[in-house]
Amino acid sequence: MRKLYLIGVGAGDPDHITMQGIQAMNEVDGFFVIGKGELKRELIEVRTAILDKHRSAYYKLIEVVDPPRDREPSDYVDEVDLWHDKRAELLEEQFGALDGVGGLLVWGDPSLYDSTLRMVERVLARGIIDFEYEVIPGITCVSALAARHRIVLNRVGEPVLFTTGRKLREGLPDGVLDAVVMLDSDCSFTTLEPETQIWWGAYLGMPDEVLIAGTIGEVGERIQTERAELRARKGWIMDTYLVRRP
Amino acid sequence: MRKLYLIGVGAGDPDHITMQGIQAMNEVDGFFVIGKGELKRELIEVRTAILDKHRSAYYKLIEVVDPPRDREPSDYVDEVDLWHDKRAELLEEQFGALDGVGGLLVWGDPSLYDSTLRMVERVLARGIIDFEYEVIPGITCVSALAARHRIVLNRVGEPVLFTTGRKLREGLPDGVLDAVVMLDSDCSFTTLEPETQIWWGAYLGMPDEVLIAGTIGEVGERIQTERAELRARKGWIMDTYLVRRP
Repeated sequence: MRKLYLIGVGAGDPDHITMQGIQAMNEVDGFFVIGKGELKRELIEVRTAILDKHRSAYYKLIEVVDPPRDREPSDYVDEVDLWHDKRAELLEEQFGALDGVGGLLVWGDPSLYDSTLRMVERVLARGIIDFEYEVIPGITCVSALAARHRIVLNRVGEPVLFTTGRKLREGLPDGVLDAVVMLDSDCSFTTLEPETQIWWGAYLGMPDEVLIAGTIGEVGERIQTERAELRARKGWIMDTYLVRRP
Repeated sequence: MRKLYLIGVGAGDPDHITMQGIQAMNEVDGFFVIGKGELKRELIEVRTAILDKHRSAYYKLIEVVDPPRDREPSDYVDEVDLWHDKRAELLEEQFGALDGVGGLLVWGDPSLYDSTLRMVERVLARGIIDFEYEVIPGITCVSALAARHRIVLNRVGEPVLFTTGRKLREGLPDGVLDAVVMLDSDCSFTTLEPETQIWWGAYLGMPDEVLIAGTIGEVGERIQTERAELRARKGWIMDTYLVRRP
């Protein structure tokens, strides 16, 4: 039976890789790298750094060119669905051509706002190639954020919502005071009360890491400016934050 | 300056440890182990297994006996507060007596429903001993659960609430359909609609790992029975689950 590993490699620091991840990596013959542009180039560098450090034998690095995607679609769910289909087709083609165990190195952890697992399930559902697959958990960008700020995400006994910038703009559900926000290119925290505390981090675990914390009233504008500058300079940004409402 | 590491060791599998965690471990002279009873004994075994595997030099293992705690207090927050104070005092005493770098091996990740970081901050706030501290992120039991069930926690673009059994019983906030539940000794999922999907896991990453998935109508009772039996047999249980409402 053909085999595929989905390996969470952590949030940027090559040493976020787990022993389990290293073991899985060493069973893989060909790694598929999916992405595009500057972000892809840098992620390939980080992934190659991880592989070079922890994998001695020869391995194949197979680039899967990410299909284009409408970032402001009229129907968000439909568009994401279509895009996942195109990705699945491309992966199927490359995995079908590989002689051996396949691997997908996933940024952070495959269980949180990541589409790799859905793509793999689609490849299987298409029924063209058959394989078994295993998921290796990784350090999430959220754990990395919390570790660098040395914070606990939840207050004692209280819940914390993991959400997106888009959803934050629609307002937090009643009774939810603490939220971790991902996929926010619009600094949606500006819609919250100025007394809200924020712990923000960009390029977590990487040499360019930037951390800012305070109330939104104090540091909100600084995060917006800094984020725009960093993004312009590098061509991409990955950031996440925790907000805690009064 | 005296130094303390808080190291997330992952959710039970000794190979959940990260390279960063191993590096930190190798700088530590004395590891503090906090806990009590059967759970403590087994957690010490897992931690010792991790240390024996990844740490070659001699190290000290310093047991900190957990103070007793009222599990059904009239005021939950106050009781937890008092308990954290007692723990802080005990850690302060032990760390004060240690000649070298201290380490705390934290189950899962220090940022999620874990009191270690708060205890360390209390030791500092007491002002008796001074030190710097660093947090090393770990694989959460949530990532481990998702990996073993091969699921993504969130639906596309949707939020997911991380919460406790106690809070789940009070009802999920409006608009929240997906929730990860921790610290639930009462099988609070039974308060949800029978069509709700559940992915449950106990002793994740350990040899005794048990996974059950289905709708609450289909598997709810089985989880309750199994949980009670496992707990009785081992003397303790650690479990977590994702619920997805229709």
